[in-house]
Amino acid sequence: MYTLGIDIGSTATKGVILRDGNEIITMAKVNVGAGTSGSQRVLDGVLSQSGLGVSDIKYIVATGYGRNRFELAYQQISELSCHTKGVSYLVPGVSTIIDIGGQDAKTIKVNNKGKMESFAMNEKCAAGTGRFLDVMAGVLETTVDQLGALSAQANLDMDISSTCTVFAESEVISLLSNGVGIPNIVLAIHKSVAKRVCGLARRAGVSPLVVMTGGVAQNSGVVRAIEKELDLPVTIPSNPQMTGALGAALLAYEALLENKSTV
Amino acid sequence: MYTLGIDIGSTATKGVILRDGNEIITMAKVNVGAGTSGSQRVLDGVLSQSGLGVSDIKYIVATGYGRNRFELAYQQISELSCHTKGVSYLVPGVSTIIDIGGQDAKTIKVNNKGKMESFAMNEKCAAGTGRFLDVMAGVLETTVDQLGALSAQANLDMDISSTCTVFAESEVISLLSNGVGIPNIVLAIHKSVAKRVCGLARRAGVSPLVVMTGGVAQNSGVVRAIEKELDLPVTIPSNPQMTGALGAALLAYEALLENKSTV
Ligand code: SF4
Repeated sequence: MYTLGIDIGSTATKGVILRDGNEIITMAKVNVGAGTSGSQRVLDGVLSQSGLGVSDIKYIVATGYGRNRFELAYQQISELSCHTKGVSYLVPGVSTIIDIGGQDAKTIKVNNKGKMESFAMNEKCAAGTGRFLDVMAGVLETTVDQLGALSAQANLDMDISSTCTVFAESEVISLLSNGVGIPNIVLAIHKSVAKRVCGLARRAGVSPLVVMTGGVAQNSGVVRAIEKELDLPVTIPSNPQMTGALGAALLAYEALLENKSTV
Repeated sequence: MYTLGIDIGSTATKGVILRDGNEIITMAKVNVGAGTSGSQRVLDGVLSQSGLGVSDIKYIVATGYGRNRFELAYQQISELSCHTKGVSYLVPGVSTIIDIGGQDAKTIKVNNKGKMESFAMNEKCAAGTGRFLDVMAGVLETTVDQLGALSAQANLDMDISSTCTVFAESEVISLLSNGVGIPNIVLAIHKSVAKRVCGLARRAGVSPLVVMTGGVAQNSGVVRAIEKELDLPVTIPSNPQMTGALGAALLAYEALLENKSTV
């Protein structure tokens, strides 16, 4: 029995097809989000990669910011539930989830049954999200992919005093004009994101195992800064951007079983 | 007896010389803030304009973000106290002060004795400050001076949904590319600032007379948007950027009288 989870975020759309609720058949991701053709392209992607037709998929759950705009979904489930489900499946025993996406950040405290206990999120402020890193990479005339490697070369531990993306941008410009090396600035940028997001995580609750997901989990510099800020190791699942879609596919399978048992 | 008030802000430094606590002799303003030569230049300015020497000034009060860095000051007094003093002097009966500066916004509830009763301020987020307008003017390839006149030409009442400067910037770019006219976008920008700042004002308390000060008070579009948002007329004193320095000069005179009476 095949189920599909689709996660329609603000900057990317992700899909996962699962067999019998325990085998990932295929995954797809396109870098366009809600309000675009992203969901159709992801659907086409997972179907062609798996050789399945739409009629083979027995249940579809949509999640993410744009979840209400995908007409083929049987059900919409919140990102928080889907992320919790997906991460708990990949990393049993997870206690704290830190998810930093392109335009938001969320942190979830998970109980020992793998259920969400509390959460804290930032959806309104660019600080502490992927967007903050995009802006900073722009000012530094580099790309976000380079940031992790750059901060590894830092030799000076300094801080950016402004949390706000706009004010931090001015600070970075003045650091550059004062001749501070880019690696040191990037380290400070990563610390700024870490501080902001760990503040959020502490509001939800922090204890090991800490798992990080979302696009920014691919930035090793931010991961290191979070580990330092929390003084705890951070686990990154493979494909950290797919956990929402995976959780949606897992919840689709559970819904299918439930529907069967109630028929 | 001459007193000097100097207001060292983040983006501008202002000075006022007062005779006998009731006559403004001269004012000066330079568009550089704390951490620069701004305070020296303002001092030179007010002295040369008035033909006075430093020794003629009997008491100097410094206020503003950089107030602790001006060595000639006899006393440092908070911006909130100085603004309240200066505005109450210029507009007797003021009840609510809305001050929007280059990088911050503060709102003060004044009681019927002209004393601060409560306040609310934003010093950390660029939204709802002059910086927000600078960023938006940049995206629209215009200058902040033009914004008031532009929004007066609007023919469509629309909103920007993001409060965050960074996300609002993206929204404006997409409005532009969708062919929305600049005057309509500027109106929406002014409404965004007004909403943000009036939220702050409501936390402090709003009742007539409402007085607006700070650099952004010179933007007629923001003033109109605040009047609409509060459904109250807004009074702008002449030289709305000088009220902090004026209040400092007034408090300097009070300090002088007190010192005399205790001698
Ligand atoms: S603090 Fe800066 S980044 Fe955050 S909402 Fe305000 S303007 Fe946006």
